[in-house]
Amino acid sequence: MKETKKKLEELGEEVVKDINSGKNPDIDIPVRSLSNVIYDEKTQMLTLGDKISKRIFFNVAHAKPFMQTLLVAAFCKELVGEGVHTSLRDLYYALKRTLPNSNENTFDEQSESDPLIVDLEVTLDILREQLHLGADVRGRAVGNVIIKDRGDTIDWSKLGSGGWAIPSNVEDVEIKNVDADYIIVIEKNAAFERLHEDRFWQKNKCVLITTQGQAARGVRRTIQRLSDEFNLPVYVFADSDPYGWYIYSVIKYGSISLAHVSDRLGTPKAKYLGLTMTDIERFDLKNFTIKAKDVDIKRAQEMLKYDWFKHPKWKNELEIMLEKKYKAELEALSGKGLKFVTETYLPDKIKNKDFLP
Amino acid sequence: MKETKKKLEELGEEVVKDINSGKNPDIDIPVRSLSNVIYDEKTQMLTLGDKISKRIFFNVAHAKPFMQTLLVAAFCKELVGEGVHTSLRDLYYALKRTLPNSNENTFDEQSESDPLIVDLEVTLDILREQLHLGADVRGRAVGNVIIKDRGDTIDWSKLGSGGWAIPSNVEDVEIKNVDADYIIVIEKNAAFERLHEDRFWQKNKCVLITTQGQAARGVRRTIQRLSDEFNLPVYVFADSDPYGWYIYSVIKYGSISLAHVSDRLGTPKAKYLGLTMTDIERFDLKNFTIKAKDVDIKRAQEMLKYDWFKHPKWKNELEIMLEKKYKAELEALSGKGLKFVTETYLPDKIKNKDFLP
Repeated sequence: MKETKKKLEELGEEVVKDINSGKNPDIDIPVRSLSNVIYDEKTQMLTLGDKISKRIFFNVAHAKPFMQTLLVAAFCKELVGEGVHTSLRDLYYALKRTLPNSNENTFDEQSESDPLIVDLEVTLDILREQLHLGADVRGRAVGNVIIKDRGDTIDWSKLGSGGWAIPSNVEDVEIKNVDADYIIVIEKNAAFERLHEDRFWQKNKCVLITTQGQAARGVRRTIQRLSDEFNLPVYVFADSDPYGWYIYSVIKYGSISLAHVSDRLGTPKAKYLGLTMTDIERFDLKNFTIKAKDVDIKRAQEMLKYDWFKHPKWKNELEIMLEKKYKAELEALSGKGLKFVTETYLPDKIKNKDFLP
Repeated sequence: MKETKKKLEELGEEVVKDINSGKNPDIDIPVRSLSNVIYDEKTQMLTLGDKISKRIFFNVAHAKPFMQTLLVAAFCKELVGEGVHTSLRDLYYALKRTLPNSNENTFDEQSESDPLIVDLEVTLDILREQLHLGADVRGRAVGNVIIKDRGDTIDWSKLGSGGWAIPSNVEDVEIKNVDADYIIVIEKNAAFERLHEDRFWQKNKCVLITTQGQAARGVRRTIQRLSDEFNLPVYVFADSDPYGWYIYSVIKYGSISLAHVSDRLGTPKAKYLGLTMTDIERFDLKNFTIKAKDVDIKRAQEMLKYDWFKHPKWKNELEIMLEKKYKAELEALSGKGLKFVTETYLPDKIKNKDFLP
């Protein structure tokens, strides 16, 4: 918290210094567009390159975003100072006003304030959560894990059918103890509930986390922290389609739009457990496939070009999809019986280390 | 569980009896369309009227749905017998197959199996949850509440920042103890998190529940059970727009599409706390309003016709919206400062019983 406050203060001090010495104030902001996103083979993460853009006060095109950036930074300093957390939407409303003696609003749309928060993350090299701004909440967890959060000691194995609701901000959560051999991350809540009901986590000594779709930041950070702090392998279980595979790649490598925080949200050692196109053949699931939509085809074609999907095994998956033009959901495995996933599919895959990289 | 199994068995036995006595088997299914949905002034709930349609085996139009209905019922009997829960999508995949010596599939789309489950609910007068079929999961809760779920004793006041993740099925959850004077149900998670961070539930001795949008069945049932079993008033806090008001009305009266289960999901004593159109005037929030979309206008016009929105206070709200053509979100209150909601707005409204019916 102190570090965040200091960085915000330094940002303001730089601007004041420029003004006092008669200079045109500016802020250096790393470029976040695809042109500056690099796949780093060594760290296995998406990162930002070194392109910088300057936001300059005395410049017709920059003056408004410059002012808006400082408004957002000042508001975040207040949040951090008061120990209050809020949402992006709240920030937008809290800062929206008409400037005195003008018709000019500070912000007209939330789409103006949202990117400035990411700018601050990149510029100051801190997480949005450290600025006390929450993101979406989705995601639940269960397993032999004991955490401490806001003074409460919480045992993930004793939360009934619901599991622990992963909050948007897990920066202040302490992970006290983990008794597990690996983590399974599941795209869909229904599959998570099935595994939880069969007490898969207990019988197989693992942690189960559902992302409920694309993983929210809190979930990505939770996966990374559990895996890093307790040296646990991570296996991702998602639909056999470009959307499911992209969910996996975001957990592992980071995302294009948040490449600047991959080191704090990504888990490069994650492996892909399934569902795969080759599973469809192997387990005779063709009757349970769905015709791929145009958007799936387009997405798969894009993914073939990504450096982080160049591995021959992934190339093969993507090419099968493009050839067969079908996809399959986790639920397709229910065609083999409701206990097939917990009693056969998952244990076999894990025992044989049958993963995609 | 026994009762559910018995009802499913009786359904099958009736059909077998018809066959053995040479009759054309049929199933009586209450009609679920709007034409058969009635607002019952006495119970203050949406219920089904007494229109019945027959699904007949020897009938070209009915033969397939008849067979599908029995497949779904047989599958549910298996779920209940084995003590296994699953999702609507899993059921669809588990039952999807090609009939031997034909090109005919049992089901081609999930849209064929989903309504049959509701048919079973209505026909057998049981909840989908009792058929062991889960619905969407969304929703979190916090407060001085102790429950027992799958053998675990869970204290909602000791779950850190995340709160309790409300599962899709709360039929087997036992509510052991509640120390609270009322329940606040909040449409948006961000507002819930803000209140939770300020420990509003502790300072004001209440239970906080977020629906995260339209309330899932598990959340509706949780609200009803908490309120009924512990005689607690329920106050709903939603956006000032037709979508937010409809969320309220579904919690209170039930929904049109699930009118047959209003008595088990609805909470007629719920009151609407805010946000209202009149709040926008009173708290000078006009700068924070959003232009109403066509869909808002259309929705408000429909709602004016609903018997359960006929109260003059609601008529007034809807008419203001249609006249001003704007709406406001909960976050608009952040324009008055981040602590305005917890320190002024909510305490004042509750103290003065300033609710809409």
